[in-house]
Amino acid sequence: MKKLIRGLLATLLATAALYPMNTMAQDPSSLKMPTLEDLIPGGETYRYTENLYELQWWGDQCIKPEIDSLFALNPKNGRETLLATREAVNRALEQAGVPKLSHFYNVRTPWTDRTEMLLPVSQKYAVYNWETGQVTTRDDLPKEPAANYDLNTESLNLAYTVKNNLYVNGKQVTNEPEGIVCGQSVHRNEFGISKGTFWSPKGTLLAFYRMNESMVTPYPLVDITQRIAILDRIRYPMAGMLSHKVKVGIYNPATDKVVYLDAGDPKNRYFTNISWAPDERSLFLIELNRDQNHAKLCQYDAQTGKLMQVLIEERHPKYVEPQQPIVFLPWDSNKFIYQSQRDGYNHLYLYDLERLHAIQPQELTKEEAEKLWNTIEKAGKGKTPTGVAGVQLTSGPWLVQSILGFNAKKKEVIIAATKESSLQSNIYKVRVKDGKLALVDNGQGVHYVQLSASGTYVIDNWSSPQVPRSIDIRATSDGKETAHLLTAEDPFKGLVMPTVETGTLKAADGKTDLYWRMLKPRDFDPTKKYPVIVYVYGGPHAQMITANWMYTARGWDLYMANKGYIMFTLDNRGTSNRGLEFENCTFRHLGIEEGKDQVKGIEYLKTLPYVDASRIGVHGWSFGGHMTTALMLRYPEIFKVGVAGGPVIDWKYYEVMYGERYMDTPEQNPEGYKQCDLKQYAGNLKGHLLLIHDDHDDTCVPQHTLSFIKACVDARTYPDLFIYPCHKHNVLGRDRVHLHEKITRYFEDYL
Amino acid sequence: MKKLIRGLLATLLATAALYPMNTMAQDPSSLKMPTLEDLIPGGETYRYTENLYELQWWGDQCIKPEIDSLFALNPKNGRETLLATREAVNRALEQAGVPKLSHFYNVRTPWTDRTEMLLPVSQKYAVYNWETGQVTTRDDLPKEPAANYDLNTESLNLAYTVKNNLYVNGKQVTNEPEGIVCGQSVHRNEFGISKGTFWSPKGTLLAFYRMNESMVTPYPLVDITQRIAILDRIRYPMAGMLSHKVKVGIYNPATDKVVYLDAGDPKNRYFTNISWAPDERSLFLIELNRDQNHAKLCQYDAQTGKLMQVLIEERHPKYVEPQQPIVFLPWDSNKFIYQSQRDGYNHLYLYDLERLHAIQPQELTKEEAEKLWNTIEKAGKGKTPTGVAGVQLTSGPWLVQSILGFNAKKKEVIIAATKESSLQSNIYKVRVKDGKLALVDNGQGVHYVQLSASGTYVIDNWSSPQVPRSIDIRATSDGKETAHLLTAEDPFKGLVMPTVETGTLKAADGKTDLYWRMLKPRDFDPTKKYPVIVYVYGGPHAQMITANWMYTARGWDLYMANKGYIMFTLDNRGTSNRGLEFENCTFRHLGIEEGKDQVKGIEYLKTLPYVDASRIGVHGWSFGGHMTTALMLRYPEIFKVGVAGGPVIDWKYYEVMYGERYMDTPEQNPEGYKQCDLKQYAGNLKGHLLLIHDDHDDTCVPQHTLSFIKACVDARTYPDLFIYPCHKHNVLGRDRVHLHEKITRYFEDYL
Repeated sequence: MKKLIRGLLATLLATAALYPMNTMAQDPSSLKMPTLEDLIPGGETYRYTENLYELQWWGDQCIKPEIDSLFALNPKNGRETLLATREAVNRALEQAGVPKLSHFYNVRTPWTDRTEMLLPVSQKYAVYNWETGQVTTRDDLPKEPAANYDLNTESLNLAYTVKNNLYVNGKQVTNEPEGIVCGQSVHRNEFGISKGTFWSPKGTLLAFYRMNESMVTPYPLVDITQRIAILDRIRYPMAGMLSHKVKVGIYNPATDKVVYLDAGDPKNRYFTNISWAPDERSLFLIELNRDQNHAKLCQYDAQTGKLMQVLIEERHPKYVEPQQPIVFLPWDSNKFIYQSQRDGYNHLYLYDLERLHAIQPQELTKEEAEKLWNTIEKAGKGKTPTGVAGVQLTSGPWLVQSILGFNAKKKEVIIAATKESSLQSNIYKVRVKDGKLALVDNGQGVHYVQLSASGTYVIDNWSSPQVPRSIDIRATSDGKETAHLLTAEDPFKGLVMPTVETGTLKAADGKTDLYWRMLKPRDFDPTKKYPVIVYVYGGPHAQMITANWMYTARGWDLYMANKGYIMFTLDNRGTSNRGLEFENCTFRHLGIEEGKDQVKGIEYLKTLPYVDASRIGVHGWSFGGHMTTALMLRYPEIFKVGVAGGPVIDWKYYEVMYGERYMDTPEQNPEGYKQCDLKQYAGNLKGHLLLIHDDHDDTCVPQHTLSFIKACVDARTYPDLFIYPCHKHNVLGRDRVHLHEKITRYFEDYL
Repeated sequence: MKKLIRGLLATLLATAALYPMNTMAQDPSSLKMPTLEDLIPGGETYRYTENLYELQWWGDQCIKPEIDSLFALNPKNGRETLLATREAVNRALEQAGVPKLSHFYNVRTPWTDRTEMLLPVSQKYAVYNWETGQVTTRDDLPKEPAANYDLNTESLNLAYTVKNNLYVNGKQVTNEPEGIVCGQSVHRNEFGISKGTFWSPKGTLLAFYRMNESMVTPYPLVDITQRIAILDRIRYPMAGMLSHKVKVGIYNPATDKVVYLDAGDPKNRYFTNISWAPDERSLFLIELNRDQNHAKLCQYDAQTGKLMQVLIEERHPKYVEPQQPIVFLPWDSNKFIYQSQRDGYNHLYLYDLERLHAIQPQELTKEEAEKLWNTIEKAGKGKTPTGVAGVQLTSGPWLVQSILGFNAKKKEVIIAATKESSLQSNIYKVRVKDGKLALVDNGQGVHYVQLSASGTYVIDNWSSPQVPRSIDIRATSDGKETAHLLTAEDPFKGLVMPTVETGTLKAADGKTDLYWRMLKPRDFDPTKKYPVIVYVYGGPHAQMITANWMYTARGWDLYMANKGYIMFTLDNRGTSNRGLEFENCTFRHLGIEEGKDQVKGIEYLKTLPYVDASRIGVHGWSFGGHMTTALMLRYPEIFKVGVAGGPVIDWKYYEVMYGERYMDTPEQNPEGYKQCDLKQYAGNLKGHLLLIHDDHDDTCVPQHTLSFIKACVDARTYPDLFIYPCHKHNVLGRDRVHLHEKITRYFEDYL
């Protein structure tokens, strides 16, 4: 039923073109044709959508920073109270001998019970009390260039890194040689990892990563900006090769001692999703084997580093991908929420730690685990059968995207999920006792939300295809808007804009609905023939079409549509927010099913009388660069021109964590690697293909593109090439305009 | 007078187009349009001009190797005598347990007095006596991969290198760590250096180079063909930077001892042009300061390594460039020939060693040296005034290219020189007693010559604009042909060929004649308008237009002319074979005068009614890549499309020896370096410029092109780029066809 409604919605979308509101209201002749400088982030005249930056909660009061003032907003009615002026703060800072503040956007108000704000100022940090006007400063920040600052606002303990070592409160914690990195993100930021330090709730203990990558074969990047070009060596573990080894340490600032978790030889193991027990006596992490098909939620003793128990295990014939640490209920330190895709969609599971201790053996066989889970599932929501430690809290053909927090009083967990539509992200509350779900926002678009301390209010920063941005405060009790803070002006006001349409079509499997987006020139004439450019990404972890402002159409898409191209994008199977099966049908042969789905998009385009099927181009970056190259080579009769940026060419040159999840190792899956190695198809190139790579690409190393160029030279085919010096895995900043002018010229020359 | 005649010749050439002989005789409709595979070396159907490979002298008999037989030719009449069959040699080799010979092209006949040939066969070498049928073998060749074999055929002592060390007769002579290279060419092959070992005449002593380059900043090249790309570090001393240090050792195989020349600190000094005294008791070399404006011919004691005397000094306000070692007269071990450009052209000077010892102080002041030379020059040819040690043997506005050897009986030195025309290379004999000069060949074209042992005959392998190749034997007594060995068939027989014309025009200085070459399509119609592509090199040490077959037009030039382009090349000031002033007018500002001259060529083209001045392209490699880029940027209104291969972009990224000769150091000549740094002009780019670089270019490192790309991105201009992986300073072999297809497409797309 739900599916049907979503299908109807999509059909509706497909038939009604979206005219951006601004241009509808204005006389077309008064509009300006936008340039790349207007439309590309980094451009001189690019306008970001209006926003209120760094809104945050101080308890249940909303804090609104500005350049010269800091306000508190009453969430019930939005009424503003001035907390501090910059002038006053700077006067106090000056007396304390601390550099001045140039705006309030970096301040933080983490202390619910104190009228204090945290001011991160150069080489120090200071706390300013807006009631007393007093400044407390702290001098133990590093004098050398440091990074990865992590302050526990309870204990005020501060962790940071200098080069490859970890420091706490000015004291050096680790003293490792080059090649061993402490206190930083590991496993190349996969498995939801984005940092390397983890304070215990009260800040008395610090868990941190220690990564030994000295055994990883270095990849040579070259910096040509030096007097004589120099080598930048990065440690890049390629699929099937020796990878780095990670350990987890626990540092106690009171004793200045480090205990490493006693986890055995870390070779070919991933230690992910670190979290603390509320009582700080144990640490949880999800361990994954190198095959990535067996995950274990482990509990370690924080004092001894000994493994206490393997609490939950998950296996999958393809892969499991833990990305969310467990979260304890604020009102019950024995219960935590665990997230899993085990029913095909990411959902919440509530576990009882004591029961887990009682029933769960150290290691379950596959059969035992399945049996246990059958029991739990049969028991149904909200009921914890005897001998079972957990229940499923949410379920259905949609997925939980994140846990935003709790309303402890009402015993609710607040989440973001795709229940309304897989293009949307909405906010829900889930009653923990029975899993009852209720929408908290307006049910439209994409919402980015911050939950207040008590869980009573949210700051709701949202957009929809028709709304560039709106910022509201809502009560989680009934989802009603209590204060409206911003209606962003149309960032494209006064500019000629194309029309945007979306719809669905059937995937190459004949049954799965896929979403597409189409931009047409504003002066579109259905009796004419238009060339088409497909913008593609196509890989996991991303979705190109969402119910954001203008369906997330990119500036370059708008630019090209204005130039007379139909811009088309399709989220093929393998992309995110559609569930596990939708994603993992590409397992061990990345790019093949994805390409078949893109061809379905082309078949649809060819049914449209106004599409010139002899002039179809394709462009994408990274996975989209792979897709672009693959489409040009596998379907040379369809695609005339392609621009592939930072493409993966051969998965054996890609890194271990992401690559092996989807492809296994080259040794395990030689046929798959061969089938997906685009060098094999270099001889198929017929159209014009421009490959663009950054010379400092440490995500998808330049070897991909250069080895493909060599394969084409060997095969006597003629791709084009461009290198952006001094950029990493994309061209950002001012040069992004150059990049898009370069891409535009290529399509204009050849399509 | 001579100049006038040469001018007339050029005029004549300019008016009469050269139709390749083959196509004149054939019905045009029966001709095949050649492909790049036909015309580019490395192409599958490319035909090298017919040749007799590895002709050589055995005394005064000409040896002619074939696959199955080795012949001796009587030079008086060309009559052939069979010396050996491969079958017979292989029978003898088999008995001696030595691998078989697959052809005779590698054999050598260095022993005038013995009926023996040297057979270099794998891991051994063998001597075969064609009278007795006996084989003598030798086992002391290295088992490891070795290189730089240098056999002294008198002593049979054999030198070679394994990695960075020198070996003689299987014994390791040097034992240096990585970073110190022995027995190999040094100073990046400048100053005429092409090897690192120098046997004394009888082979009793071996002089060798020892180069310490451990202090040279390495340049990182990347090899992308490995499983994970790896670093190839090359030691590349860039202009103004710390350079390598060279010492010269002398090894005595009898005592197994090495003596290094006692030359002091080798920092910033070049040790060039090593040669031996006939009595093996002393060694000569020409030492040059880092500024390259002061050269000293030094004599060292071969036993002690002590400097005996600085014999001759040369200074020049721009640079001196010694490229030829001294050569002793075979009939007078006290006299040697020294070559110098001191009168503006490279000429021969005869010196008396004893007199030099008597008159020459260790170090002459500049004034003293000038005074001495004035005295010598006043004395005139052939007369050695009292107190003077040398006389000038040849003179005139032409230059000696090389000494080929001597006729000892007649006391003549045989040379190659440009006396007939600066486009030609002809053979002359010079009577040593009075400098009397006589032409030995037919006075046409370009001659590559080998002189017989007695100096009585030459093997004359020559070509001219109308003659692809002819091989004759000539007597040096009267230059008459005594035997005709080959008339090569037209390599382009049966193919459509454009016409070739040459002529001269005035340089930008208003007075110097410059040679140009023009190719027109075979079906040229003077009433039509044709696009033009300028092929340019433009740097020192090279000349694009010579009186070789079809005036040395390249295969790609022929191909493009066939496609309907006028192909134009001009040897601007700065190029070779025109004397010192012609070359060194570019000193300290490389590329500027050269560019002005190229513009003179364009001005001439614009006077031609059939030239489409709106469609002028330019292409060149290396120095020609610099010229191409410079012309596109300095004259954007003239040049619409350019393809620059392996370009020098900024001379400070080029190497010390070549770069500082013409540019001094960046510290000495900051304005010049800035003026010639093409990154400064990146913003001027208007037309289409494709830069091509090889990823293993160790002559002109990739930093040139990549830093230019960055400058263009910064300046928001849009060059194109291509990289050839796994190639060095050009694209050779099979891939050369791909390269030229790539270049062709670029001009076809944009010109």
